[in-house]
Amino acid sequence: MIQNNIFSSYANRGMDLENDINITNKYYLDKNIGIIYKKPTPIKVAKVIYPRKNSALITEAFYEMPSTTDYNGIYKGKYIDFDAKEVKKNKSFSLYNIHKHQIEHLKRVYEHGGISFVLVRFYVNNTTYLLETKDLINYINNEKKSSIPISYFETNGHKVKESYIPRVDYLKVIDELYYLEEV
Amino acid sequence: MIQNNIFSSYANRGMDLENDINITNKYYLDKNIGIIYKKPTPIKVAKVIYPRKNSALITEAFYEMPSTTDYNGIYKGKYIDFDAKEVKKNKSFSLYNIHKHQIEHLKRVYEHGGISFVLVRFYVNNTTYLLETKDLINYINNEKKSSIPISYFETNGHKVKESYIPRVDYLKVIDELYYLEEV
Repeated sequence: MIQNNIFSSYANRGMDLENDINITNKYYLDKNIGIIYKKPTPIKVAKVIYPRKNSALITEAFYEMPSTTDYNGIYKGKYIDFDAKEVKKNKSFSLYNIHKHQIEHLKRVYEHGGISFVLVRFYVNNTTYLLETKDLINYINNEKKSSIPISYFETNGHKVKESYIPRVDYLKVIDELYYLEEV
Repeated sequence: MIQNNIFSSYANRGMDLENDINITNKYYLDKNIGIIYKKPTPIKVAKVIYPRKNSALITEAFYEMPSTTDYNGIYKGKYIDFDAKEVKKNKSFSLYNIHKHQIEHLKRVYEHGGISFVLVRFYVNNTTYLLETKDLINYINNEKKSSIPISYFETNGHKVKESYIPRVDYLKVIDELYYLEEV
């Protein structure tokens, strides 16, 4: 059901959501709210030349499959780990967009007491949802389907408020889910 | 005092310690002890060609300055963050080997309730030390020197046991420092 082809992943990767999350993470950092970074894209370097001393130029390299998710960090002392995906046209999120080992990683983090989830933005209703790993796993285990409909996100996910600053305030959802007594 | 030249960092980067840590992290993962990964090296891609459909070949790229440290993850529910350095010949660890923004990152993590530190391996005595961020910061603030002598690591750091499996058991030190009652 879940594909391991890196290229489909790259083709479907949402750069707009990624950009919004990067800006949001910078806001969180600047305001000292949380420390969350996007990991660099893994690249396998094959050839490097040195046109000048101390100046490395990579002339041959390849994209590699990421081992984990794209984002992690710390918020209120807790380990945070997530991936972000965009759905451009459909009314369901295809599980081909998330690698099996990424789901295993999210699950492992959850079992170790971290906060893990996916952020999925649908363009059909212009809404970004936070879906916790436990609900993602539940769907995969119980439904045996290759995609998750918006209705599941509506029922089991949590809408992320979008505004100018911060762009996608996903830590507000985390507050509501994990720190309700403090909000 | 602290240099921001990426090339000195790369030149001094310890691949042996890095390799040992990667093997150790794999052991921690396989035994379900902790989930700690090395982040990919940040690379700025300038040119990509597609020799075949769905096959990207990077033909021009550059190493970028890392924004944070090399390693992070989760252990016993806590956020873990650290960097690793080798000292090949000297009896002191030059602070030129660690970027100012990396120290700031370690400090920030510490302030947010995470566990942050540096692992420094000296070849003169074949010993790897774990130095907590608070002790790193204390030295920098009080000593105003450009390097930290081994004696400071002996007094304020913690020796990391090295063996065949696991290679560098740094989480054992974390156990002793943070989870003593449970060990």
